[in-house]
Parts: sequence; structure tokens; C-alpha cells
Amino acid sequence: MERLKQKIINEGKVLSDSVLKVDSFLNHQIDPVLMQEVGEEFASRFQDERITKVLTLESSGIAPSVMTALRLGVPTIFARKRKSLTLIDHLYSAEVYSYTKQESNTISISKDYITHDDVVLVIDDFLANGQAALGLIDMVKQSGATLAGVGIVIEKGFQNGRKLIEQEGFRVESLAIVSSLENGKVTFKED
Amino acid sequence: MERLKQKIINEGKVLSDSVLKVDSFLNHQIDPVLMQEVGEEFASRFQDERITKVLTLESSGIAPSVMTALRLGVPTIFARKRKSLTLIDHLYSAEVYSYTKQESNTISISKDYITHDDVVLVIDDFLANGQAALGLIDMVKQSGATLAGVGIVIEKGFQNGRKLIEQEGFRVESLAIVSSLENGKVTFKED
Repeated sequence: MERLKQKIINEGKVLSDSVLKVDSFLNHQIDPVLMQEVGEEFASRFQDERITKVLTLESSGIAPSVMTALRLGVPTIFARKRKSLTLIDHLYSAEVYSYTKQESNTISISKDYITHDDVVLVIDDFLANGQAALGLIDMVKQSGATLAGVGIVIEKGFQNGRKLIEQEGFRVESLAIVSSLENGKVTFKED
Repeated sequence: MERLKQKIINEGKVLSDSVLKVDSFLNHQIDPVLMQEVGEEFASRFQDERITKVLTLESSGIAPSVMTALRLGVPTIFARKRKSLTLIDHLYSAEVYSYTKQESNTISISKDYITHDDVVLVIDDFLANGQAALGLIDMVKQSGATLAGVGIVIEKGFQNGRKLIEQEGFRVESLAIVSSLENGKVTFKED
């Protein structure tokens, strides 16, 4: 997705060989027009999958997911990273380790919103080691629903997230695949 | 906003005289079409304010804010509830006490995305005691930006959040004002 790549080049900050910060349009400030285009692109790539629900993880996954769900004409659900007082049982949950934050979170969704009849598209902002996506996939499996695939806004192609998801037999669609962050420079995998 | 009120009546769960759960369309599962309408309504109500930024708080504020920002043609920023490793200084921050969760959080935004030239619309999903909105307003004040007002999806009119914000001289626009949750029944304030 060319406009996304341009935005990454122009506004992304390379903090190390593995950390790309895109706080100006995705992870803190959000560009809603770009998110609309992201949603249209995901909807287009998965349009034949008869998706009934879009599943993501709070907080940075919400904007692209809502836009994708709007375009697909289905609801979206965001998994929570901790249990709230009004959402305490009747849950699917999974453990997700964040290498960036060096901590483990329990993520969870209510059993009310994904059932075995659903066809679920998982959306997330970043794919690196795949831990968040695998946690979301785990909850889809627990529900008995069908997983249509995983849509990622920015994939770090030099980490092993894609491999782990594809090993489980699932499709991964990334809108920008970064092949290297070396020497402070963003290089994309060729389409 | 009539469709929002109907959605609250049909799907909201009254857990006590003060707790209304709307996890099926706003706080966990999200109805993207309703959020689009919410965004259009906020944009319409604040259209003469020359807004340059929409500010909200993760996670449930993000969907209505992105849709509002899309309609206004401006970016949105979501305040974080805790500091992340890639966002550690150069922050505006405020303390927010949650009566629901009985805990205090530090919320923060980067100084990069709101400056004294901005005209900011604060959006949140719920208004009860006003603590989250007042924390967001506090950060707008720190930045020197102009606050155009506060847009709330669901206001609990029987709590004092509106009073506290209006006492500071700011406009509050709520799309549904619940006047009572007594006897397990949602009653709205008349328009």
C-alpha cells in the first residue's frame, strides 16, 4: 500500500534495528483518512471470505479494525489486555508476551461476541514476533469459529511472526512489509 | 441521537443503579456504522469551531474519535493510560481516578501532537463523574491549546461530570443523556 509506505518513510522514527515508531499516524496520533484507506484495503483483500467479525487487540488495533469492519459491514471486537470489573467471567483468554515491553498480558474477549458460526478476520497494527496475533488466533480457536486470516498494517519482515502464523496454516496479509531497519533506514520488501 | 438511544434500550445491560454496560456496540464489540453516525453527529455539532485535533482516551474513546476526526478532516490523538517504553518523556500528563475500577491512572499524551495553536475537541465514550474528561482537559490546558468543547457518547446525567466541566466554562455535547438507571430501567433525559 503505497501511501502507507510513504507515510512510514516520511514520519516513521527508527529507534533501533528492531524498533520503528509510527506515533504520528497509527500508535498515538491517528490519521483517520489513512485508516479509512487501510480498512478499504483489508476489506478488499478478504472480500471473498464471508467474514462476520473483525477481531483486534486494544488500543492501536482499534482504528484500522473499525474502518475494516465498516467496509465489510460487520461488527468488530477489541480484546482487552486486562480484565475489567464489568467483564469478569464468560471469557476466552490467552497469554501474550510483549518483547517490546518485556511483560506478559492476559488478553480476553467475551464469549458473547464470537461463536462457532463466525468467520473471523484478525487485524493488528504491527506484526513482529507474532505473539499478539497468535493470542488472538488462540481465542478464535477456543470459540470454534473459522479464522479467515490475519491483516497487519506494518509487518517487520525480519522477525518471525509471519512464519509462526503461516505454520499454523493461516493467511497473513500485510499492507507494508519492512525488511530492514538497519542504519536508521526503513527498507521495504518488494511487492 | 435516536438510533443510539434505541441501541441502548435494546442492548444495554443495567448492572446497578449507576452501571450501564454497552459492551455489544461501544465498549468491547463495536458497531462501526453506529460509530460513523456518532462521528457525523459530533462533527455537525462542533462544525463551526475550527477544530484542528480530536483528543480521546484509550480504548473505548478511539472508535468514536476516529470517526469524528475523519468527518472533521483532522487527526485524532488517544491518551495512554500508562507510559510505554517508546513514549517516556516529552509528555503532558494528568491523574485520573476511576470510580468504576477504584484506581488511579496516569494518562499522558506526547507534546508533539498538541500545541498552543491547536483547537481541540475532547471525545469520550461515557461521562459520569467527569474524571477522565477533566484529565484530558487538563492536558489541553497544559499545551496552551484552545478547548472547543467535550463530546460524550453516553452521559450519566445523574452524576456530576457535566457540572464539573461546565463550571470550568466548557461546552458539553452528549448524544444520549441517561437520567436514571433505577429499577433496572434506562430512562433518558428529554431532548
